[in-house]
Amino acid sequence: MSSKITPHTVSPPKKIRVGVLGATGTVGQRFITLLSDHPWFIIEALGASERSEGKKYREAVKWKQTIPLGGLGLGGIGTSETEKINSTDLRTDDGRVADLIVKACVPENFRNCQLVFSGLDADVAGDIESAFRAANIPLFSNAKNYRRDPHVPLIVPLVNPSHFSIISQQQRLQSPPLSKGFIVTNANCSTTGYVIPLAALEKAFGPIESVLVTTMQAISGAGYPGVPSLDILGNVVPYIGGEEEKIEWETLKILGGIIDSETESDKNGTPLKTFDMHQAGGQPALRVSASCNRVPVIDGHMECVSLRFHRRPPPSPQQVREALSAFTPEVQALGCPSAPRKAIEVFEEPDRPQPRLDVKGSHNGAGVSVGRVRQCQVLDIKFVVLSDNVSIGAATSSIINAEYAVLKGVVS
Amino acid sequence: MSSKITPHTVSPPKKIRVGVLGATGTVGQRFITLLSDHPWFIIEALGASERSEGKKYREAVKWKQTIPLGGLGLGGIGTSETEKINSTDLRTDDGRVADLIVKACVPENFRNCQLVFSGLDADVAGDIESAFRAANIPLFSNAKNYRRDPHVPLIVPLVNPSHFSIISQQQRLQSPPLSKGFIVTNANCSTTGYVIPLAALEKAFGPIESVLVTTMQAISGAGYPGVPSLDILGNVVPYIGGEEEKIEWETLKILGGIIDSETESDKNGTPLKTFDMHQAGGQPALRVSASCNRVPVIDGHMECVSLRFHRRPPPSPQQVREALSAFTPEVQALGCPSAPRKAIEVFEEPDRPQPRLDVKGSHNGAGVSVGRVRQCQVLDIKFVVLSDNVSIGAATSSIINAEYAVLKGVVS
Amino acid sequence: MSSKITPHTVSPPKKIRVGVLGATGTVGQRFITLLSDHPWFIIEALGASERSEGKKYREAVKWKQTIPLGGLGLGGIGTSETEKINSTDLRTDDGRVADLIVKACVPENFRNCQLVFSGLDADVAGDIESAFRAANIPLFSNAKNYRRDPHVPLIVPLVNPSHFSIISQQQRLQSPPLSKGFIVTNANCSTTGYVIPLAALEKAFGPIESVLVTTMQAISGAGYPGVPSLDILGNVVPYIGGEEEKIEWETLKILGGIIDSETESDKNGTPLKTFDMHQAGGQPALRVSASCNRVPVIDGHMECVSLRFHRRPPPSPQQVREALSAFTPEVQALGCPSAPRKAIEVFEEPDRPQPRLDVKGSHNGAGVSVGRVRQCQVLDIKFVVLSDNVSIGAATSSIINAEYAVLKGVVS
Amino acid sequence: MSSKITPHTVSPPKKIRVGVLGATGTVGQRFITLLSDHPWFIIEALGASERSEGKKYREAVKWKQTIPLGGLGLGGIGTSETEKINSTDLRTDDGRVADLIVKACVPENFRNCQLVFSGLDADVAGDIESAFRAANIPLFSNAKNYRRDPHVPLIVPLVNPSHFSIISQQQRLQSPPLSKGFIVTNANCSTTGYVIPLAALEKAFGPIESVLVTTMQAISGAGYPGVPSLDILGNVVPYIGGEEEKIEWETLKILGGIIDSETESDKNGTPLKTFDMHQAGGQPALRVSASCNRVPVIDGHMECVSLRFHRRPPPSPQQVREALSAFTPEVQALGCPSAPRKAIEVFEEPDRPQPRLDVKGSHNGAGVSVGRVRQCQVLDIKFVVLSDNVSIGAATSSIINAEYAVLKGVVS
Repeated sequence: MSSKITPHTVSPPKKIRVGVLGATGTVGQRFITLLSDHPWFIIEALGASERSEGKKYREAVKWKQTIPLGGLGLGGIGTSETEKINSTDLRTDDGRVADLIVKACVPENFRNCQLVFSGLDADVAGDIESAFRAANIPLFSNAKNYRRDPHVPLIVPLVNPSHFSIISQQQRLQSPPLSKGFIVTNANCSTTGYVIPLAALEKAFGPIESVLVTTMQAISGAGYPGVPSLDILGNVVPYIGGEEEKIEWETLKILGGIIDSETESDKNGTPLKTFDMHQAGGQPALRVSASCNRVPVIDGHMECVSLRFHRRPPPSPQQVREALSAFTPEVQALGCPSAPRKAIEVFEEPDRPQPRLDVKGSHNGAGVSVGRVRQCQVLDIKFVVLSDNVSIGAATSSIINAEYAVLKGVVS
Repeated sequence: MSSKITPHTVSPPKKIRVGVLGATGTVGQRFITLLSDHPWFIIEALGASERSEGKKYREAVKWKQTIPLGGLGLGGIGTSETEKINSTDLRTDDGRVADLIVKACVPENFRNCQLVFSGLDADVAGDIESAFRAANIPLFSNAKNYRRDPHVPLIVPLVNPSHFSIISQQQRLQSPPLSKGFIVTNANCSTTGYVIPLAALEKAFGPIESVLVTTMQAISGAGYPGVPSLDILGNVVPYIGGEEEKIEWETLKILGGIIDSETESDKNGTPLKTFDMHQAGGQPALRVSASCNRVPVIDGHMECVSLRFHRRPPPSPQQVREALSAFTPEVQALGCPSAPRKAIEVFEEPDRPQPRLDVKGSHNGAGVSVGRVRQCQVLDIKFVVLSDNVSIGAATSSIINAEYAVLKGVVS
Repeated sequence: MSSKITPHTVSPPKKIRVGVLGATGTVGQRFITLLSDHPWFIIEALGASERSEGKKYREAVKWKQTIPLGGLGLGGIGTSETEKINSTDLRTDDGRVADLIVKACVPENFRNCQLVFSGLDADVAGDIESAFRAANIPLFSNAKNYRRDPHVPLIVPLVNPSHFSIISQQQRLQSPPLSKGFIVTNANCSTTGYVIPLAALEKAFGPIESVLVTTMQAISGAGYPGVPSLDILGNVVPYIGGEEEKIEWETLKILGGIIDSETESDKNGTPLKTFDMHQAGGQPALRVSASCNRVPVIDGHMECVSLRFHRRPPPSPQQVREALSAFTPEVQALGCPSAPRKAIEVFEEPDRPQPRLDVKGSHNGAGVSVGRVRQCQVLDIKFVVLSDNVSIGAATSSIINAEYAVLKGVVS
Repeated sequence: MSSKITPHTVSPPKKIRVGVLGATGTVGQRFITLLSDHPWFIIEALGASERSEGKKYREAVKWKQTIPLGGLGLGGIGTSETEKINSTDLRTDDGRVADLIVKACVPENFRNCQLVFSGLDADVAGDIESAFRAANIPLFSNAKNYRRDPHVPLIVPLVNPSHFSIISQQQRLQSPPLSKGFIVTNANCSTTGYVIPLAALEKAFGPIESVLVTTMQAISGAGYPGVPSLDILGNVVPYIGGEEEKIEWETLKILGGIIDSETESDKNGTPLKTFDMHQAGGQPALRVSASCNRVPVIDGHMECVSLRFHRRPPPSPQQVREALSAFTPEVQALGCPSAPRKAIEVFEEPDRPQPRLDVKGSHNGAGVSVGRVRQCQVLDIKFVVLSDNVSIGAATSSIINAEYAVLKGVVS
């Protein structure tokens, strides 16, 4: 998974102006909370639907974060702890973002932004995101619309930032070809959480043959108003529309490599790059079976994972624990400021991690927590993984992706 | 799984006097609620710990049922709907049980009882239950103490009442041999719920090779005071002590047959009967892997099940649905009054069953509900099963076991 | 509060055909659950919005009751316990209601109904209910639209059914005057719950001078989808739009009498009857202060009430307990089948009633439960009252009102 | 309420060594979380029961805080935001506290501590706290045992730190008289929350005549294991043992002044100082009526308050809002590092504050939030107040009290 992009080890510019699309929604609010505290990115423009256009952000938004809108920029949550300590004495937001005028989501309103984050709903994200790319604006999207696009990478920043290497082809294939604009997506929240330990295990022990995952997902994953309280209070709903398909499909794209297409080529006859869906390079096709449940938890997706390795004999639970704990993703090594101090926190206590106690973990929501690593009587190994679906499962992933792009020079 | 006991098709005696041990506890309260409405059984004596001895039941108990103690016997819940309709005009409890004096759990106090139910805690159940058996009193226990005993059957009444056939050996092996006394146990609540569809599928399609089950268990399964609210409100706890081992082990005993032992024989040299743990008669050993979670639900264990059949090709989801829906356990055919009208209710809606809406189902908690039957990408079939852990998962199973024993003449 | 209507002590007709408007909504589902089990009323027609028109009810509705749609008519809940016992052997619904074709809410579709229940949303109830009255169909509405109408009674059946006496004036004032049609409303759920003990206390001890009530209301009071889970899980929302005003105003109309208007008269110069708003007949104006909160409870509104009597010295807590317990509303004496066996259940335990354990009480949701009666250091007496907001707080009140109207000959 | 203690405006010593009694309990864990981040206090010794004695703290404690034990000292929560920003670059805990050996709660083990915090349970606090005082160790207690002691001040730091003036008398009356040791208590959590706005209003508008308060209290207020989940999930319990009496009594001591006793005098015949219980100095006795409820909320006590002023006419809601917002307690003016930036945050939104969103507020749990200020139809004014029961309602109050004592020279 090494990157082919030339590393830029120089420091990033002090300030990179960014925009947020879908700023009043759940994911948008989260982007703003995180960005208001960011050491590089400064929020320049906010976009939302017609209903909000022209209003001050504080008047357009029904703010639902536990950090008050007036308290943004004070280092409450968001970036890594280390970063917080170093940066909070420099800046406070002082209500600047709350007073920004919300604009329509058209590229003209975001001309001053060097990159844009999208927390748009899927029903509008398709056209708007495409327009921003066409306007040569790099776009980091949390929406699902382009995840299956054969030229758009689906990047979990702790797993496959190397997939940024397909960006130049994406730009070249637009008409006219683009010099700066592109779309990068991050994955569905429940995929993101469990694919991180999978990546760590494939790195340590080679390909996984099959995975069974049963999720217990928090209500915040459904946005606002989202799940009616009558459906979930004191209840479990054993179904989340489309979720199982997303997990089963996205896992293959994320954990797979990039190869030359056998069917598609450019006008010069050069084969196009394409995603191998975990099926090439000698590795067996990975089979994934997901069962998704909604549970009455505010934040934090719990996932019970059982898996079988290709390698016989498989690693022991202790070897698995060590490999998970040792996993150091490239974004961390590279110094992305929002990367977690520790990608995977491994718990030894028998009853941990738990969403209410551990969702932020010691990684502040930017990593994941794994516990109960033990043998599976049917496959090889089973464990539970907890991820903060509103952090690494959503906005935080987009932001680390953008940080990586900046450090690698993909965004200039 | 046919029974070797001679069927008694004559009607049961109008009134069978029963006792309840552990009457003030969660399971005991449930026994009393169900029995106060029962067409055959009449509560004769209540036993509890020293703290309660000598008090009226209404003063000894901290009543936690949604049916008021003063409203017992009015057909609220408990027996099957059909039974309720036919019986409620005959009897009401009129506070009789509430006024019973609670006694110490010694056989002398239960001499007038033809059988006894035990809702005792495991830390005291061992000696007390043994004493009742020795005193020639049939005992139906919800406690775990004797479940692994090689001469005590572990009976889920909708699955393996045929295991009653080992009772005569259990009686013969006591010293002195017993004419009436015995211990029958029912299974752990999470085992009970999911083993019912497994039994239906083995009956229809032959042996299952492997099962992966992930549970989301209600707090009532832990008794009272049970789970502290700070541990579970808005949370998931991915661990229930001993529960995974119970599921993995109990399933084998319940779904297995009874064979001649190769190592144990009686004084005449006749081999003793023993449980084959799902390993004999040509069927492959069943592998079971369980992951247990506690969720903030009052009543109703949800279990996500994936399984692989021995038979190739495996049945289709539609065939599985039909086999589950058609399953008619012997206790139902025989006319046990507390048996469910339908053993397995199969939901077609994508998001059902759910604990809050469906825990009682159309079977009033005495059957189970299955939904989301679909193909598994790793094993063959996956589905979700919901069971009422305080009904079929506990007291209701003991009661149907006792009804079966009465109808079969095991209890006279 | 004696009624001026001539009592009809003859038995009601065996079957009275009724319709339900808003049949697919939360209140409509509740009407259907209760009516499917009713000894007199038989559901003849169901009305809902265009979206549902022409579909079978089972296909139009997203059924959210804990009694399965297929289990209606089996005596699960709804009518009083006594009634259930006597009636359930006669009838089961057998899926008849589930197969009814849903119709548009226009009077032509309900010509065969002798009376109609309305669970319509307030945004459409105004015109539809008015059209049904004009079409000479008696209508019992749970909607708020006509509660403040000076000719429409606002009736809590356990409190002020005597207000039916204004119906003849309501009919006479329509143009053309009506022989059968009228509108009767029942009160807001939180008003209904606490006004029942207030009525019992005024009956026993004379007028109340002031009441402070703080509510903790269940989510089912907001309908479906109603309260988003992100707003209420593990939370309290100290505001319910318009609720405090409703309580403060409705209480005065319900607890007041009917007097001759000083300003309005009919064409003959005879003064019209009007509601005195608890201000005439020598009784002082009642002051009511309400604070309303939403809490994460499924069913059951809890209300903490403090009040001051006009009488000095005020009654003691024990006298209050006795008066509440002794309260026998007219609908009960008259034999309305859905009236509770006991109107007010008084708990002596210090920590009861509680929604989860006591919402149905021994009155099956048709009465209320009061506990913690004690002195108030600021006013005279304080207590807590629990009512089943989806039963006596909604559909059950409409149904008892209709039963009363039948027994009194207001509906023929 | 001005203090008679000479202010010490010099900076406090860089490090003050402190101990924590009851260190493994809920309040103890909270003390440790807050202190690990404190600019002056450094944890020197931890005390707990025999069961924990001799173990490392990390092994003795079942850590239940959302900040990992290993993440202490990183500025997560605890001190004010301002303080956090300034201090976090200086110190991290680096696991030092987690490795401390837990000791028995006897003064000998705390000789190196300049002051001690007590989070002991009431059943052991009496003797232990008394022993620490006798050993001349200043003790700041969260336990209830000495709150009613006529020589022990009951101090809500944002309200009545002036009551520290009675400490010298407390020391003088011990035998032998003490030079350093004393006991200061802080109030019950539900008293603390609502007495802060009461104090602000009395300061602005003169004495309050009567208060009605209805609480909705979080489960964390009951400690661990505390409230069983079966009692509170989806439920409200309208009773908390002893809580109403505490509120009704503590309010009078906290809001009252200190006067010369008419009955008690020292050996020289000089009258002793005593608490006037809000009854002297021309102010009328305050009448308080409390109704306490437990609700399924993790952290944050909500209280609905209605009150009547002595002054006629009473202030308007807008005047009340302004007075609350303007309230600046002495501990804030004096510069206590844990004092909130704003003592009372006043919300204008109709549906705020809410526990889940606002419990930390912009004051990080060290102040309170008030909303819905409006006229009361029965008394004068009503509003809702939210306080963080585990911060200002418990350990934070003890810590601010200690800071005040240091700044005032009461602790040297």
